[in-house]
Amino acid sequence: MKEFLSDTFFLSSEVSKELYFDYALNLPIMDFHSHLDTEDIYRDKPFKSLYELWLKGDHYKWRLMRCSGYAEEYITGDAEDYEKFLCYVKSIQSAVHNPLYIWSHLELKKYFGIHKPIKEDTALEIWQESTKILEQTKLSPRKCLKLSKADIVFTTDDAMSDLTYHKLLWQENYNVKVYPTFRGDRAININKEFLDELEKKYQKKVKSLDEYMELVFRRIDYFSENKSKASDFAIEDLPTIISKEDADKIFDKFLRQEIQPSERKKLSSYILLKSIGHIHKRKMALQLHIGATRDNNTLLFERLSKDCGCDGISDKGFIDGLGDLLDKLKSQDRLPNTIIYNLNPAFNQALAALCGCFSDSKSNVQLGAAWWFQDHKDGIEAHLKTFSSNLNLSRFVGMLTDSRSFISFSRHDYFRRILCDFIGEKVTKGEFYYDKKILEKMVKDICYFNAIRFFDIKN
Amino acid sequence: MKEFLSDTFFLSSEVSKELYFDYALNLPIMDFHSHLDTEDIYRDKPFKSLYELWLKGDHYKWRLMRCSGYAEEYITGDAEDYEKFLCYVKSIQSAVHNPLYIWSHLELKKYFGIHKPIKEDTALEIWQESTKILEQTKLSPRKCLKLSKADIVFTTDDAMSDLTYHKLLWQENYNVKVYPTFRGDRAININKEFLDELEKKYQKKVKSLDEYMELVFRRIDYFSENKSKASDFAIEDLPTIISKEDADKIFDKFLRQEIQPSERKKLSSYILLKSIGHIHKRKMALQLHIGATRDNNTLLFERLSKDCGCDGISDKGFIDGLGDLLDKLKSQDRLPNTIIYNLNPAFNQALAALCGCFSDSKSNVQLGAAWWFQDHKDGIEAHLKTFSSNLNLSRFVGMLTDSRSFISFSRHDYFRRILCDFIGEKVTKGEFYYDKKILEKMVKDICYFNAIRFFDIKN
Amino acid sequence: MKEFLSDTFFLSSEVSKELYFDYALNLPIMDFHSHLDTEDIYRDKPFKSLYELWLKGDHYKWRLMRCSGYAEEYITGDAEDYEKFLCYVKSIQSAVHNPLYIWSHLELKKYFGIHKPIKEDTALEIWQESTKILEQTKLSPRKCLKLSKADIVFTTDDAMSDLTYHKLLWQENYNVKVYPTFRGDRAININKEFLDELEKKYQKKVKSLDEYMELVFRRIDYFSENKSKASDFAIEDLPTIISKEDADKIFDKFLRQEIQPSERKKLSSYILLKSIGHIHKRKMALQLHIGATRDNNTLLFERLSKDCGCDGISDKGFIDGLGDLLDKLKSQDRLPNTIIYNLNPAFNQALAALCGCFSDSKSNVQLGAAWWFQDHKDGIEAHLKTFSSNLNLSRFVGMLTDSRSFISFSRHDYFRRILCDFIGEKVTKGEFYYDKKILEKMVKDICYFNAIRFFDIKN
Repeated sequence: MKEFLSDTFFLSSEVSKELYFDYALNLPIMDFHSHLDTEDIYRDKPFKSLYELWLKGDHYKWRLMRCSGYAEEYITGDAEDYEKFLCYVKSIQSAVHNPLYIWSHLELKKYFGIHKPIKEDTALEIWQESTKILEQTKLSPRKCLKLSKADIVFTTDDAMSDLTYHKLLWQENYNVKVYPTFRGDRAININKEFLDELEKKYQKKVKSLDEYMELVFRRIDYFSENKSKASDFAIEDLPTIISKEDADKIFDKFLRQEIQPSERKKLSSYILLKSIGHIHKRKMALQLHIGATRDNNTLLFERLSKDCGCDGISDKGFIDGLGDLLDKLKSQDRLPNTIIYNLNPAFNQALAALCGCFSDSKSNVQLGAAWWFQDHKDGIEAHLKTFSSNLNLSRFVGMLTDSRSFISFSRHDYFRRILCDFIGEKVTKGEFYYDKKILEKMVKDICYFNAIRFFDIKN
Repeated sequence: MKEFLSDTFFLSSEVSKELYFDYALNLPIMDFHSHLDTEDIYRDKPFKSLYELWLKGDHYKWRLMRCSGYAEEYITGDAEDYEKFLCYVKSIQSAVHNPLYIWSHLELKKYFGIHKPIKEDTALEIWQESTKILEQTKLSPRKCLKLSKADIVFTTDDAMSDLTYHKLLWQENYNVKVYPTFRGDRAININKEFLDELEKKYQKKVKSLDEYMELVFRRIDYFSENKSKASDFAIEDLPTIISKEDADKIFDKFLRQEIQPSERKKLSSYILLKSIGHIHKRKMALQLHIGATRDNNTLLFERLSKDCGCDGISDKGFIDGLGDLLDKLKSQDRLPNTIIYNLNPAFNQALAALCGCFSDSKSNVQLGAAWWFQDHKDGIEAHLKTFSSNLNLSRFVGMLTDSRSFISFSRHDYFRRILCDFIGEKVTKGEFYYDKKILEKMVKDICYFNAIRFFDIKN
Repeated sequence: MKEFLSDTFFLSSEVSKELYFDYALNLPIMDFHSHLDTEDIYRDKPFKSLYELWLKGDHYKWRLMRCSGYAEEYITGDAEDYEKFLCYVKSIQSAVHNPLYIWSHLELKKYFGIHKPIKEDTALEIWQESTKILEQTKLSPRKCLKLSKADIVFTTDDAMSDLTYHKLLWQENYNVKVYPTFRGDRAININKEFLDELEKKYQKKVKSLDEYMELVFRRIDYFSENKSKASDFAIEDLPTIISKEDADKIFDKFLRQEIQPSERKKLSSYILLKSIGHIHKRKMALQLHIGATRDNNTLLFERLSKDCGCDGISDKGFIDGLGDLLDKLKSQDRLPNTIIYNLNPAFNQALAALCGCFSDSKSNVQLGAAWWFQDHKDGIEAHLKTFSSNLNLSRFVGMLTDSRSFISFSRHDYFRRILCDFIGEKVTKGEFYYDKKILEKMVKDICYFNAIRFFDIKN
């Protein structure tokens, strides 16, 4: 029996250990997709308790606690912080193979130096010890980033954001580079509220789709001028792209408030195409997140609003629509470097094959890392298998946290171990040649340097 | 090379063996979904031959024999019993990795004490030996249940069943508790035949959907009064739920025999919603079986009628419709404890995520065990991975046979070994902490006690 | 660490090695689905360079090079042969777990006796050495077939082909038997061009669907008279089958050039049904290739035309339509031995179950080997698991290359190793009985003899 979460966990061969300890372990972290709050980084207020760090805002953990049979009172309700913490401990202690189990242990170890197994017996000790450590170390967002060796972080920002705190951080020359990402969902999913904000911002009355796109482009320009290297869109449906004429007509109906839901979807696809075109022009990269269904439990959503832990995975195909989008972009020489994250692994094979149709020396198009419900050992291994069998794994841009938490960077460590074990196993079995130079480059590229190049980060 | 089907088969680590031998092996069996015939249990007539036990009614084995190239004469036709047995032996002896291979060996071992490999060379010996043993032991349904350590069995019963034999068994205070399950398919899939039976039973002319539901509720009440703890519905399509007004209108069309197929489906969803509401009121649990396509081979179906071995797996999505159903039930505070069995593993990830949106302290909603075409080592392992990565495995209600056979309880043993090996492997690799108390509870809960609690079985 | 691609690679147990070395290794190859050019075999012109053998026409390799970030100039453009070769070497050297990595090494070893790892350091040596060896050995199509121990090869031939070179090869009594396969896509996907060719060939004006089918049957007869044992159709959509009356009407619209796209699909299904009926009459087998999307990258397609490396995988279901087709054929006693290749593994479980509904002593219906984007270790293992869990693996007809290359036969070796390891592992773990007679027959059948029987090849 291997020691519990020892230094070599997930590393099953000598080559795996060599790759991990010699090449992966000490690399800095570039986290190119996160939901960290830039204001939090800027203000750098110390954290008060493990409750605040772990449970206050983490819908992953809420779900697990609900599935473990606990009442909402102990999850998002009125119970005391420690009671909620204890409820999480009772949930996690038997959650074998749930990624939260290992993540939570890694976080305790990395940010608190606590090596204890998390269970009812140790709950109080962990609570008390962690409280004391927080008091002593004044652990704060920036201390977390430093402990994590994160040197580049991308945030995800609403298309209308002023990027105030990004500017402030760059002004102070903070040694962690914090780049904004243009999250274009609201611009794409055409609606009155966003149009109003846009018109107000630019003091302009939008009278046509061209004028609308013009203002959306100005938002993209604004992000680009503020160092943004990436855009991001969440996509549920993806109809094939309509003509400009049809798009113009539908937009006019939207202005007259006569648009139908099916027309709205068609118009969205068109706006997406045009927006990506402009993103390409600005040399920003594209990220697509496909396949999440949102807010499935109305009761819970009404009580807690969005991101409360009742999102799911779509089972609807999207390959035709996505193929059409990529093809149109490629035909117009407007396809940026693109990462496509897919939530339903049933579509991963088809998606990997599609990426292989459009990736070339001008556009690096690739299957994004295992995401959200797939972000665990099985999901990551499945992704590595699919990617490597279909494409060239050594080009993979690697891991991101997609997280709101400042201590979830251990997921990079979690990923790097699985990656090194994956490659190490092939070498160990004689299925890949043991060439140190090639292996070193491959591991370092996937863990860090591919992302630097992909997003064109200069020092 | 490990000995063939030794005591430790499927158990690859020391921890796996410990979990299995110390905690799982000696637990009784609660089989909460079976198709056993209650009359057979009541009458307890001894079995005459291995042919009767294995081949007379088992469409799993028929399929394998057909796929192995044998003629129908030797499967369901006029050949002698021994010829058919020999045909099965010739089919199974080379069916590597087919679950029937191990199941058949386990059954021979457990119920006959025969440890021989099944193959042409040994067929005659096995036939003769088993015949002699059946004569000696008078192996019968109740003897099988006793040998299996089954102490609780759920049968699956048509909504109109009088539950005569269930009553008789409870009257005689039989030490295996046999609970009926309300199988509501005919009530949901609205049709004249069922309506006639219902009207005749309750001497009432149904004039509206309300009146129809009233009688369906009386059937559910009748089951509940006769100890039923569970309901079950097989579902192919699941449209989103229509309004009461629309449902009323469609029901009237049904009464006037003017209903269209698409309307029938919509009405079914509505009746399903209402029925589950009543099931919840009666504190019964819900089971949904999703994704089977029936009777695909018309020629075979016409010759042998249903359950002849030509059912298949649907490739059609159902997440939107199912999500809508669960959401409506949850919004009305009518969502029971629910197990959702899904036949197509391509949908398992999306389904597990959906379960995680609705499971809480009031409703335990979970992904059911690998079922039918997935009920084998790979399918069970895949299910355990999906369940544990997304939900909390320690809450899993575990295994059921779904079988018509009195000797298929060895599938619980098959499952328990895979389960213990799954958990044992995580501990052995240092990915889960070795805490005997937690591990013992987890294994025992999944193998037996979770189901007791889930269906609210009192002693 | 195991030696790189040693004699025992992929073979992890002693039983695996025994099965491979004693039973599989020395069997001849029957390649029952390839895209080899019969004229090339007939003319037997020696190959000039590794470029010609590896890169001139291989869109698998082009894709990998594009995904590795190289410009089209070095892939299909104007660069020198050696520059292109070097570009491939730089792509492949880090493409861990991509099947091309192992295939390329196996090909160097088998056809050139070169055991070097392929990487930038060795590129020039390999180029020079291989050039010298090609000069010395005059390696040619027939030499490749001999070195591969291929004794039976099926080509894939357009429905209108005259099969000239097949005839010439049979006339000269060439010891490798080269059988044509009736590729019926153009006959099914009704279009003017094919109709013109057909009318010209048979000097007949087609005035009805019956007359069209009559001429299609004559093409099938022609193939059958020229030793063809198999047919093949690539299928994207598969609507349920329409009536003869409807088909007649749509065909008339086609003749009047008034056919709609949706009608065209319906008509195709009908013509497919009828064609297969005739194929069955001619005792030829059926192959269906389902799930490829073609020419997704318009820019690339326009530059290079089809088979340029931008095909993909469909995510659209087909089970209902395919089930309807198989059921109608079975009902009419017209279902041939059938292999169904499926490109999207998400549908494999449903497809395997469907095969199990129709396979019997008259029609051997089975899930074809992992194909194209699935033709790698993970894909083959997944296929073996799905096949064996659902059907009887010992009846599997096994591997084919599906290749245009004369040196891709090493894929049979690749497959045989995975197969032997799969079976060997079950025996080693005590999950399958170690009976040498049964194991020998199983391995030899899957590697060679099942295919001989399936396609009814006589000596």
